[in-house]
Formats: sequence, structure tokens, C-alpha cells
Amino acid sequence: MQKQEAPTYLKAITIRDSSDIHTINEDIKKGMVLILRVTPLAQKDVKKLRKMVEELYVIARDSNADIARLGEERIIVTPPNVKIWKPDYNLK
Amino acid sequence: MQKQEAPTYLKAITIRDSSDIHTINEDIKKGMVLILRVTPLAQKDVKKLRKMVEELYVIARDSNADIARLGEERIIVTPPNVKIWKPDYNLK
Repeated sequence: MQKQEAPTYLKAITIRDSSDIHTINEDIKKGMVLILRVTPLAQKDVKKLRKMVEELYVIARDSNADIARLGEERIIVTPPNVKIWKPDYNLK
Repeated sequence: MQKQEAPTYLKAITIRDSSDIHTINEDIKKGMVLILRVTPLAQKDVKKLRKMVEELYVIARDSNADIARLGEERIIVTPPNVKIWKPDYNLK
């Protein structure tokens, strides 16, 4: 067996509640690429979603992570070793 | 200035025509993470889309890339150093 560098993981999940922020925070610290579907929370509680997205931007900034929207439904967060190629994005 | 390892880029694009496969192929070889929106081509020509998705799976396999659907609208392709965390996916 050859020794290999640990891969980066890409995880696509759906945010259903604002308490999900804790798991997301841990996954960001672990260096995962996250694709977060926000539509169910948007339909349930727009204010909670807005607050959560703000928190996500703060966490991303503090973790040197990149963050961008992906269409209407999703948000992408990438660790420091993965950069989002920006021309198509609407950045905050 | 510190010397840093080159980052991996994540690029989100929309596939509009089957000729886009060439650019996508190059981006895969460059080691980019690709998030491909396929809905416009699906609306235009489902057969072309199906053929293109098959080609994408072959390219991914030959490049040791990971590939998965992201909802109805998108396909994710990741380079060998990025693995897709699978529980949420519908894999081919």
C-alpha cells in the first residue's frame, strides 16, 4: 500500500434547521467542501435562513474559507486549499 | 511572499451545448472541481444530454475523478484529490 495524502471531501447536504450550523461549522473546520441546499429552511423560515447565511459568511471568513451562492437553492463553502472560480457568482 | 501550494479551483458552469464537453474535459484534466448545470441542455435536447452525461462518466473514470448528480439540475465532478461523500447521492 502506498501512503497517500488525505483527500479533501465534498459533502452535499440540506440545511433543515438553524441548529445544523454546528455540524456545518465542524465540517468547515475539517476542511470539507460543502454544498448546502437551503430551500427547505427558506420555505420554513426566511428570517432564520438569513441569520444562518450571515453566520456562515462569518464562519467562512474566520476559517479562511471561500463562500458563494449556487443558484437559488444552494450555497458553496470551500476550505482554504479550494478556491471558487468566481465569474458566474453573485458574491456578498 | 510565501510559496504556497497551488489551490484546487471549483468552477460552476452551465452546459449549453454538447460541444462544451471539450472545455469540461480540459478542466477535469486540470484538476478542477466542476459543478455542471445541465437543465438548459435537458430542455433543448434530452438525447444529447444523455449522451454527454455518458461521456462525462467515461472521462471521469479515465481521469480517476469522482462524479455524482446534485439534485435534478446539476452534476458534480471532482479531481482525484477531492472525494465525494456519498450517502446523499444517487450514483450511476
